[in-house]
Amino acid sequence: MYTPTSLEIAFASDAVETVFCLATSGTKTVLVPVANGSEEIEAVTLIDVLRRAGADVTVASVEDSLHVEMSRQVRITADKLVSDCATTTFDAIALPGGMPGAESLGASKELDQLIRDQRQSGRLLSAICAAPAVVLESKGLLDGLKATSHPGFQDKLSNQSAIKERVVEVENIITSQAPGTAMEFSLAIVKQLFGQEKADEVAGPMVVRT
Amino acid sequence: MYTPTSLEIAFASDAVETVFCLATSGTKTVLVPVANGSEEIEAVTLIDVLRRAGADVTVASVEDSLHVEMSRQVRITADKLVSDCATTTFDAIALPGGMPGAESLGASKELDQLIRDQRQSGRLLSAICAAPAVVLESKGLLDGLKATSHPGFQDKLSNQSAIKERVVEVENIITSQAPGTAMEFSLAIVKQLFGQEKADEVAGPMVVRT
Ligand SMILES: [Cu+]
Repeated sequence: MYTPTSLEIAFASDAVETVFCLATSGTKTVLVPVANGSEEIEAVTLIDVLRRAGADVTVASVEDSLHVEMSRQVRITADKLVSDCATTTFDAIALPGGMPGAESLGASKELDQLIRDQRQSGRLLSAICAAPAVVLESKGLLDGLKATSHPGFQDKLSNQSAIKERVVEVENIITSQAPGTAMEFSLAIVKQLFGQEKADEVAGPMVVRT
Repeated sequence: MYTPTSLEIAFASDAVETVFCLATSGTKTVLVPVANGSEEIEAVTLIDVLRRAGADVTVASVEDSLHVEMSRQVRITADKLVSDCATTTFDAIALPGGMPGAESLGASKELDQLIRDQRQSGRLLSAICAAPAVVLESKGLLDGLKATSHPGFQDKLSNQSAIKERVVEVENIITSQAPGTAMEFSLAIVKQLFGQEKADEVAGPMVVRT
């Protein structure tokens, strides 16, 4: 069931860092960028829930290394570097929060281009916790649309009308508040990519509170 | 704020695998064992929430390597090997589910001893998803007490009276159902270790649904 040998090889070899994002087909593709200081509940809930739904999820580090240390010291190995995904198009981009992780996501030049293209093309762009304010609003990509962010960052949003909602969906932008809303946020992305039926099918065995 | 150099060293060097668990003091210590195929939302929510509460959390791999690949291919690097923790006493042990992760946790000889000691000494023992059935019930450690597990494993529990509850707390044993109950489960452990006030203090900024 497992391939510890290839896993060990992947961990042992820097060669993995030079693998480029391959064009995929037949399912929805999702980019989950991560940085040192990204919030691990948010990042991992996104990855796990989207993979349960059948999405082809690429976890991409904006750091120089595939290895990132998240906000509560969970150490995760990304699949790719963001720089290896610079020419790839994703059906959705989902930004975890956490500080200074969100700041590092915002500062990545390669990710900046991917995020701006995503917004311009009207493809799904989503962010949680610090990321809606620190990344999307800071880049001027929310266009005054309804959004939410972590309570500590909500005052940075130009549109304050929906900041108290747990998940806000408007114009292919989904935003959400914190680790405690990460499951609802991830399922909202599943719903937009795959439909409500798939979201319910994924939520059931996870015993998500309804 | 970060120490990328030591992080890189830790990742690069096998030396880290020989570091033994040190006696800690002044806070509560928690062991979160992980294996290939452990459920990543459950493992990471436990680690993150307990660290937010101030617990000294040791993520320990039951595999031969610190590197584990979780049930949805999230790759995590543990802090220690379980074999390096064999003589350490923890205030709490928290077992994530996921298959075949829970089976591997149950099969670990070193972890078996730690879990049996934990139960015998009446220290906090907790398990979620597959783990209450596959690890605790299989080892005969539930003693017919109320417990729950993942819906797919609930029929393995000898006491069926509380299987539909999201979190069951009885006699220093806490059990829970699935990724969707991982936040409530983790906060129940925080409450038992640090009190209700701390649990509320941790839950607030995470915007946990009440
Ligand atoms: Cu590594």
